[in-house]
Amino acid sequence: MAGTNSERVLLAEGPAVILVEPQLGENIGMVARAMANFGLSELRLVNPRDGWPSEKARSAAAKADHVIDGTRVFETLEEAIADLNFVYATTARERYGYKPVRAPVVAAQTLRAKFTAGEGTGILFGRERWGLTNEEVALADEIVTFPVNPAFASLNIAQAVLLMSYEWMKSGLKDLTDVAFQPLEQSPATKEQLFGLFDFVEEALDARGYFRPEGKKPKMIDNLRAVLTRRAFTEQEISILRGVFATFDRYSRKNPRGSAGAGAGKGADGADDGADGE
Amino acid sequence: MAGTNSERVLLAEGPAVILVEPQLGENIGMVARAMANFGLSELRLVNPRDGWPSEKARSAAAKADHVIDGTRVFETLEEAIADLNFVYATTARERYGYKPVRAPVVAAQTLRAKFTAGEGTGILFGRERWGLTNEEVALADEIVTFPVNPAFASLNIAQAVLLMSYEWMKSGLKDLTDVAFQPLEQSPATKEQLFGLFDFVEEALDARGYFRPEGKKPKMIDNLRAVLTRRAFTEQEISILRGVFATFDRYSRKNPRGSAGAGAGKGADGADDGADGE
Repeated sequence: MAGTNSERVLLAEGPAVILVEPQLGENIGMVARAMANFGLSELRLVNPRDGWPSEKARSAAAKADHVIDGTRVFETLEEAIADLNFVYATTARERYGYKPVRAPVVAAQTLRAKFTAGEGTGILFGRERWGLTNEEVALADEIVTFPVNPAFASLNIAQAVLLMSYEWMKSGLKDLTDVAFQPLEQSPATKEQLFGLFDFVEEALDARGYFRPEGKKPKMIDNLRAVLTRRAFTEQEISILRGVFATFDRYSRKNPRGSAGAGAGKGADGADDGADGE
Repeated sequence: MAGTNSERVLLAEGPAVILVEPQLGENIGMVARAMANFGLSELRLVNPRDGWPSEKARSAAAKADHVIDGTRVFETLEEAIADLNFVYATTARERYGYKPVRAPVVAAQTLRAKFTAGEGTGILFGRERWGLTNEEVALADEIVTFPVNPAFASLNIAQAVLLMSYEWMKSGLKDLTDVAFQPLEQSPATKEQLFGLFDFVEEALDARGYFRPEGKKPKMIDNLRAVLTRRAFTEQEISILRGVFATFDRYSRKNPRGSAGAGAGKGADGADDGADGE
């Protein structure tokens, strides 16, 4: 479920999203949610068909109340962008004009640079059914369009806002490969640890007659070591594997771990090798 | 409106999208539409709550019928991914495990490379309310997570699919700055064309007594030329500007273009300077 969490940063800045004559409150709400997901907060509506405020919008916003509460309504697009310095128009259709056409990645970087420099910025989105008029596009500085499937190009309004909001968020990342959380810390195993595993497994297999015929033993060992080397195991993984092999080595189905006769055949080596795994 | 257009390429390839226990048909339909928007086509459902086929899904898919018609249903996640080689799990929450965590950009590039090499690839998406279980995540090779607003992190399922589909599409572009259409061709103006505009405007202004007092004329010309130079006009723009100034020069409110007394005061220069503009 969506929701605010007081311990986490609520990003709420960036370009204004301007919806021109949106029809359905649900769509406005989904736009607000998409904006909130990626840190945008300023929503402006030009002449929304069903009026404002809208309970349907608030409900669809899934608790993006800070966006809904701050939404402002204007009668004309000109009024809605009067205080801004730089505005993009989004469009899926080819427009025959001289205005520069940008990819979302480029548009987001441009918006980030201008926003950081203190300019008022905005992104225009058209009506659900037929987008922006040419006259409305003419009020923008540049056009942004999405790299869509040529034969299936129509994005709904909340999806278009989502993609621009997402690119806005990405434009603020130092590194596009950044992720919000990391796997548990692991150290690559040393060769000594790996060789210890080889020895352990090979001895246990040898004791069970695995290497037959004797002449094939060198090749079989090569193959086994290739399997155990290929993944570049971490220390933790080596430990888990030792635990697994130790379990096979020490216990049987008849005398499992914890049973009276279990573990009698082996010494101290590997006794705490993490047989509980993971 | 969404729709297929027989003259345009319908992209329909790439990783399978696997929805685990989706609840609402509408969401499945919106997922199908998002996939189609960005060229994906293979949808697999694990145990959909309301069964399959679903009229609600078809309706919400907004004519992404090729995705809906090809959707396959499985009883378990294991069956759903049995034929694949490499699978991502999407998750918003931190998972405590050793699996690599990737940003969407990286995940899409990895999927593109594996898909191109002929591997079967897929992306897992969890239930609407609580995503994937740890056991389900464990079946994937790697994790992908989105760079969201920390205090407003919950994406709905169709939005998550949209973003991964969008990154998939982008991973196939030669250049991320590519756009599907370009502005009308324009050539930068030559300096000669620009100087021609200077001369024309300065003469017309001088004839009207614009440069007063006389001592300020050099500075006023400097300023005027700075304004006309700054934008690095194209040939077309120079032509439009000449048309504008020629109109001011030749016609008055009293004797507009086309009236009996109009245009008498000037010679041939600029007579076809594009006074009709744009």
